[in-house]
Amino acid sequence: MGLEICTVGGYEEVGKNMTAVKIGEDVILFDAGIYLPAIIEFQEKDAVESKTPSEEKLRKIEALPNDKILDKLGWRDKVRAIIIGHSHLDHIGAVPYLAHRYPNAKILGTPFTMEFLEQMLQDEKITLRNPRIKVNEDSTYIIKGKSGNYKADFIHTTHSTLQCVFVMLHTPEGNFFYALDFKFDNHPIIGAPPNYKKLREAGAEGVDVLVVDSLYSGVERKTPSERIARNLIEDAFDSVRNEDAALIVSTFSSHIARLKSIVDFGKKTGRKIVFLGRSLNKYVECAIKIKQCPFQKDVKIMKYKNQINSFLKKVEKSRSEYLIVCTGHQAEAGSVLDRIVEEETPLKLRKDDHVIFSSSVIPAPTNINARDKMDKKLRRKGVRIQSDVHVSGHGSGDDLKDLIEMLKPKHIIPAHGSLQKATSMVELASDLGYKFGETCHLSFNGKVLKL
Amino acid sequence: MGLEICTVGGYEEVGKNMTAVKIGEDVILFDAGIYLPAIIEFQEKDAVESKTPSEEKLRKIEALPNDKILDKLGWRDKVRAIIIGHSHLDHIGAVPYLAHRYPNAKILGTPFTMEFLEQMLQDEKITLRNPRIKVNEDSTYIIKGKSGNYKADFIHTTHSTLQCVFVMLHTPEGNFFYALDFKFDNHPIIGAPPNYKKLREAGAEGVDVLVVDSLYSGVERKTPSERIARNLIEDAFDSVRNEDAALIVSTFSSHIARLKSIVDFGKKTGRKIVFLGRSLNKYVECAIKIKQCPFQKDVKIMKYKNQINSFLKKVEKSRSEYLIVCTGHQAEAGSVLDRIVEEETPLKLRKDDHVIFSSSVIPAPTNINARDKMDKKLRRKGVRIQSDVHVSGHGSGDDLKDLIEMLKPKHIIPAHGSLQKATSMVELASDLGYKFGETCHLSFNGKVLKL
Amino acid sequence: MGLEICTVGGYEEVGKNMTAVKIGEDVILFDAGIYLPAIIEFQEKDAVESKTPSEEKLRKIEALPNDKILDKLGWRDKVRAIIIGHSHLDHIGAVPYLAHRYPNAKILGTPFTMEFLEQMLQDEKITLRNPRIKVNEDSTYIIKGKSGNYKADFIHTTHSTLQCVFVMLHTPEGNFFYALDFKFDNHPIIGAPPNYKKLREAGAEGVDVLVVDSLYSGVERKTPSERIARNLIEDAFDSVRNEDAALIVSTFSSHIARLKSIVDFGKKTGRKIVFLGRSLNKYVECAIKIKQCPFQKDVKIMKYKNQINSFLKKVEKSRSEYLIVCTGHQAEAGSVLDRIVEEETPLKLRKDDHVIFSSSVIPAPTNINARDKMDKKLRRKGVRIQSDVHVSGHGSGDDLKDLIEMLKPKHIIPAHGSLQKATSMVELASDLGYKFGETCHLSFNGKVLKL
Amino acid sequence: MGLEICTVGGYEEVGKNMTAVKIGEDVILFDAGIYLPAIIEFQEKDAVESKTPSEEKLRKIEALPNDKILDKLGWRDKVRAIIIGHSHLDHIGAVPYLAHRYPNAKILGTPFTMEFLEQMLQDEKITLRNPRIKVNEDSTYIIKGKSGNYKADFIHTTHSTLQCVFVMLHTPEGNFFYALDFKFDNHPIIGAPPNYKKLREAGAEGVDVLVVDSLYSGVERKTPSERIARNLIEDAFDSVRNEDAALIVSTFSSHIARLKSIVDFGKKTGRKIVFLGRSLNKYVECAIKIKQCPFQKDVKIMKYKNQINSFLKKVEKSRSEYLIVCTGHQAEAGSVLDRIVEEETPLKLRKDDHVIFSSSVIPAPTNINARDKMDKKLRRKGVRIQSDVHVSGHGSGDDLKDLIEMLKPKHIIPAHGSLQKATSMVELASDLGYKFGETCHLSFNGKVLKL
Repeated sequence: MGLEICTVGGYEEVGKNMTAVKIGEDVILFDAGIYLPAIIEFQEKDAVESKTPSEEKLRKIEALPNDKILDKLGWRDKVRAIIIGHSHLDHIGAVPYLAHRYPNAKILGTPFTMEFLEQMLQDEKITLRNPRIKVNEDSTYIIKGKSGNYKADFIHTTHSTLQCVFVMLHTPEGNFFYALDFKFDNHPIIGAPPNYKKLREAGAEGVDVLVVDSLYSGVERKTPSERIARNLIEDAFDSVRNEDAALIVSTFSSHIARLKSIVDFGKKTGRKIVFLGRSLNKYVECAIKIKQCPFQKDVKIMKYKNQINSFLKKVEKSRSEYLIVCTGHQAEAGSVLDRIVEEETPLKLRKDDHVIFSSSVIPAPTNINARDKMDKKLRRKGVRIQSDVHVSGHGSGDDLKDLIEMLKPKHIIPAHGSLQKATSMVELASDLGYKFGETCHLSFNGKVLKL
Repeated sequence: MGLEICTVGGYEEVGKNMTAVKIGEDVILFDAGIYLPAIIEFQEKDAVESKTPSEEKLRKIEALPNDKILDKLGWRDKVRAIIIGHSHLDHIGAVPYLAHRYPNAKILGTPFTMEFLEQMLQDEKITLRNPRIKVNEDSTYIIKGKSGNYKADFIHTTHSTLQCVFVMLHTPEGNFFYALDFKFDNHPIIGAPPNYKKLREAGAEGVDVLVVDSLYSGVERKTPSERIARNLIEDAFDSVRNEDAALIVSTFSSHIARLKSIVDFGKKTGRKIVFLGRSLNKYVECAIKIKQCPFQKDVKIMKYKNQINSFLKKVEKSRSEYLIVCTGHQAEAGSVLDRIVEEETPLKLRKDDHVIFSSSVIPAPTNINARDKMDKKLRRKGVRIQSDVHVSGHGSGDDLKDLIEMLKPKHIIPAHGSLQKATSMVELASDLGYKFGETCHLSFNGKVLKL
Repeated sequence: MGLEICTVGGYEEVGKNMTAVKIGEDVILFDAGIYLPAIIEFQEKDAVESKTPSEEKLRKIEALPNDKILDKLGWRDKVRAIIIGHSHLDHIGAVPYLAHRYPNAKILGTPFTMEFLEQMLQDEKITLRNPRIKVNEDSTYIIKGKSGNYKADFIHTTHSTLQCVFVMLHTPEGNFFYALDFKFDNHPIIGAPPNYKKLREAGAEGVDVLVVDSLYSGVERKTPSERIARNLIEDAFDSVRNEDAALIVSTFSSHIARLKSIVDFGKKTGRKIVFLGRSLNKYVECAIKIKQCPFQKDVKIMKYKNQINSFLKKVEKSRSEYLIVCTGHQAEAGSVLDRIVEEETPLKLRKDDHVIFSSSVIPAPTNINARDKMDKKLRRKGVRIQSDVHVSGHGSGDDLKDLIEMLKPKHIIPAHGSLQKATSMVELASDLGYKFGETCHLSFNGKVLKL
Repeated sequence: MGLEICTVGGYEEVGKNMTAVKIGEDVILFDAGIYLPAIIEFQEKDAVESKTPSEEKLRKIEALPNDKILDKLGWRDKVRAIIIGHSHLDHIGAVPYLAHRYPNAKILGTPFTMEFLEQMLQDEKITLRNPRIKVNEDSTYIIKGKSGNYKADFIHTTHSTLQCVFVMLHTPEGNFFYALDFKFDNHPIIGAPPNYKKLREAGAEGVDVLVVDSLYSGVERKTPSERIARNLIEDAFDSVRNEDAALIVSTFSSHIARLKSIVDFGKKTGRKIVFLGRSLNKYVECAIKIKQCPFQKDVKIMKYKNQINSFLKKVEKSRSEYLIVCTGHQAEAGSVLDRIVEEETPLKLRKDDHVIFSSSVIPAPTNINARDKMDKKLRRKGVRIQSDVHVSGHGSGDDLKDLIEMLKPKHIIPAHGSLQKATSMVELASDLGYKFGETCHLSFNGKVLKL
């Protein structure tokens, strides 16, 4: 019969990832993420109350993967498991809203990922009945189904948060490999390099279908290691020569390895390190819970507005004593950095203060515009800006070629992006001998492929 | 009276750098470089004989700084010294053709730079009567003139070859600071970071005029350290998984630190390392002479075509035994890499062979086109290409701001590029309080500024 | 003694143009414009009340040329005339706020320009005591001063609104030529081509200083004629095949020739043509007053929100009966088009409706972002968008070369843009034999040049 | 059974177009073009003899569509007709080399297209046995096959040469519509606008499969009419103010309408108009033969090198007497313009001479580089360059939407470009309600689709 794969979401945009695999009477879901731009646009417009919208509303603004297709296909009741690859919102963010639709499904993820899910549920005050199961990296879980039992290998990989995994699903109909959001980083700062051994073993055993991240498939290089970002961070701090200046760093809240580098070199400045912002707090809490927060004792975290404001009052008076790590690298309205720049806090930035962006601007007009405005305001105050102190967590062409050469899959389905991105992946695959339409397939949201 | 500065060359293009400083009856020249694109174009067209053209021919194709202006100004006979900042051809390449015009001038440079000059003279069979003087980094030389004696501080900096210096010239009329071709690299792999202490001292003493590299003044970041390139090299080699494949690296011949990284990680592959090409041989010879070639015993160097061809015959048979480091990263016609790709040597590249470009494509149509063609040919053979395994040696906006903040010069003259590049430097300087037309000056080839 | 020129505003940005020319005891000002981006940013932030800010406020947000420099120079009381080249806000918009500072100055402009000034004064409820004088195109006005009388030639040129002029000022110290905002259009739809004859005569008589538009000096082409835009408009209307659809066009309100083309071809659709928006109303009123509104009887104009809303209610019911011409081509918040797209009016756009943008997106992040959002919303509704049905009103490299070749000025000062734009102009001029720093000069806001 | 379509060539590159349609025992081929870049690269390298390579050689360098697939499919002997849409080499250039493989096939095309074929055959000294049939625009030809007779409608469209057609093939299995290389030009200078009436009739009758030009499907606009180019030509000539200067225009040799505009406005300059170059001669000859060369009596044509050289000797002496129209707009080595610029002819260009490029640079590195070099040389001589006096002949997004809305095809197959271009077409079609993978199909060279 073969595997049937429904590419539910994330095949026409970057976000709301979801892929369903059907074997006989059983269906396994991979990821259930949200589409962040839709939510941001919604919040900008109806900013009256910032509480999270309902499932219905989220569906209407197309922020959720359209999993109603599974109802139509008659797959919904067959879902036995929802496997989450890692803790980013475009992979996990829809679980609180959709998991209830799959009462027969357990939710699987690594400990860090599952801790983050619990945090989300708590924040949103949502209760889920689905059993939650923590599967360690490089270990295995057997999913029991009606048509058989399926071994799911959680294979450690590297990306830009903790405990990210590839998942290889062994089925009687063939082996399915899910490889979203990774780069091959041999020096990831926290944790080990990807488990290349297991990848080669998977390739030796035989991969029938590979669903793979195509975001940067058109970029002909290897994405640099997180070690590079660490070096850039060190150099960025070394460039801060005025010891009386305020020093602010903003980066991705989920990026614990990056935060470790910031803290490590931050400590050398002799400043007290303070983390400001809700999402920073959330991810760091999860890292602490799984005992992978190496800087736990070196930082203080604040998440409430009042608390942050009164702290920034202190900073205003003795700016050289603190290193501030905060949210707002995309100049998001209401983020801590945005509030500082807009002078909505007691800290008034001025000549020679430093703002380090350990991030790059997401290349959409809305982000470009927001950062452009923020940068102009900072420059007008005389603040010294350091931008792009960052490397991406998504693999580029060379990483993708390496993955394919190790796994030697029979079929490739590009995911994680628009049709244009997927097309780049097809071209890359064709360099390696794959044939579009035969062994390399373009899909779209809601399509079913039988392979 | 003040300093008089003639911006002889390199103020309207990237190349043929030359700046003259006049104090009373004495003139000091800084750099005497060639304009490489003109020479390449000339050689492409009149490729019959590849011997170097005469001074007259070089003048005609505008490959030399137009120092005839110094005759017109009556400055020529007053030239007491020609100070060369480092060994790149756009700074030193015109010395063999022009120094004879300044019989009263000594030629000054660091030992590596001066060794390279001797190599050039030998190669071109040119004899110069000017005394040659080796000045160590972070030391001082007194130039004797008619209107006084002038102390020249050679201050160590970092760039992309050995023994690069800033030069501070102390004169009764004011202090002149020459700062072309540098980045502030705190981890330069070979040698120490820039001598920040001396820079601050210079600033404290007072700099009247700063002539400064404006090439990347429009890029708002700090140029990454050579350490980053070293890490990228390590990762590039780690990506070579097929041990039976040929492995070729091409990089800048003068970049001894880069070559060291290539050799260090190359040794871990267990392959024998062989350098192929005339210019590689030339720069490595100089490094050996000044005892700064850490990989001297680890590599074999070949420069003659026949020798290279018969070696590549061996490689063809046992490609996994060798790591080839060769010229040709810009796909220059006749370079070793070009000859390999064009199948003019016994080595026939094929599927899974690797070519690593530890360089970036110089963004001119002719280089883009040449590399595009080379890359297509490599890809057609199935060769795996790794590009841009590289960081630049020229500082960007943040490095430049740092320099200016340390030196606090009264006047800034942007150099090393077109008017457009210099304009970016003016904008950068105006962020730091300089005023265009008053304390920050745009110049052009042949102009005299009295400050 | 020579001319003294103070480049007051518009030499570091596109906007707030102002140039002062001093001859002995007399000063003539050219243009007094505002910097629109500053005003927009201000209004976005303090949107509570949309009334125009005060002079003080406008100065603080740097929306006005900083003419306080004239006080410092002691030039203020010597100002005898303010000459306005044309009716765009970056040339005339500051007159209501600044003219009172120059009680000895008459305000001069073509009839259309002066009508627009009256409209502005009325709208802002500002009274000015300065005499206002209408000078026809291709005629002359004698400005009386203390050190002499100065003939001002108003020479007809073409741009993107009515009655635009170059101004040649004849003085005992030399002839000054002011040439901002023009293209050489031989088929301008309304009015005649530029008066080339007078330009050649000016060249023959001798131009000492030319201040010239450098906005597109870096673009190597001739800007296409308005006739091209007319043809594009015709083709755009021909592409509207669904006769039941709504049809909306947005363009620059001041562009009477463009509006004429829209009306001419709009009439062929058989639809009633209605203009919606305050600024459309304002400019059309001025055109009517000077009897240069050829479509006066063919259109109906509405400017009040209520009126517009109740009209759009009718359109919603019988959308095929109307052709709407409205403001909002840059997706400005609160413009008529923006309100329609945001569904704040009774007209709900839907599949097959057409929106034609007879404009191009101003290439700043804020405009790009606004239009990107508007376009996405339109596309989601199924609306057919036609963009860039437009040609610019600013000359490019070829126009500028033509002007220079006709005028043969002794000195050139690039204006109307950042230093980068001016630098392109310098490079263009150097192709024609001008020498930077000698006959071609870079200036900045507030600088004084003596030539 | 349905139509079977083999997308033989032009589905992975711009060039070597060929599509095969099978109905029962009969196959109809559409186009047989060459891939020009491969031929140019070959000629550059093996420039010893410039004679055209053999079929075998052309296959090896992948310059021909790989029609060997038709042998494998068993379709080769079933080919009843080869229908050529228009006379460009990427559509007709392979006919001389491949038609002999299809002995049962007639060759069909419009008179101009067929004349050009005869010219090619004569030039290459190739004899073909296939019957050649001239079908007028907007007329019909019945192709007789074993499984039935098939009506082929030749529907007039507009592009950038004479007598271009869409072809609608009526078959018992469904209607196939071939729509490569067109724009919807309502003012084409020569001939009528596209036959919209027939297009709507075709839509009413029912189109099952549309193969369509996707080259500019990603450009959101309507491609401007040839009328626009005509206006630009007029303005370009009007900009030539120096009557003593040489005046050279280069454009696409096949573009008879463009040539007409050049001649029409060229005549007004009072200069004698001379066409120089082999390919210009070839296309003009064809136009004369079909009596559609309106400027036949106004120009003199020269094609031989000696003849051209001795004519240019005359021009050198009396440059103001002639308007030269010649080949070389892409700076092709050996073209007339290239030889003039390289000073290989007696005409030495100098200050104030004009070169008008009625073309745009094809955006590949090799063309960009060649034109960049040519432009620099021209500029060094002081020649005035006018570039991009041109509009494209390929429709953009709006034209494509119009075509689809008129034809309402059941299935769309994007052609004429890489997978990336085709993907843009899929996105455009999905805006119109088509579903990728169901009604809109991505193909590749050699694939068979059954619809």
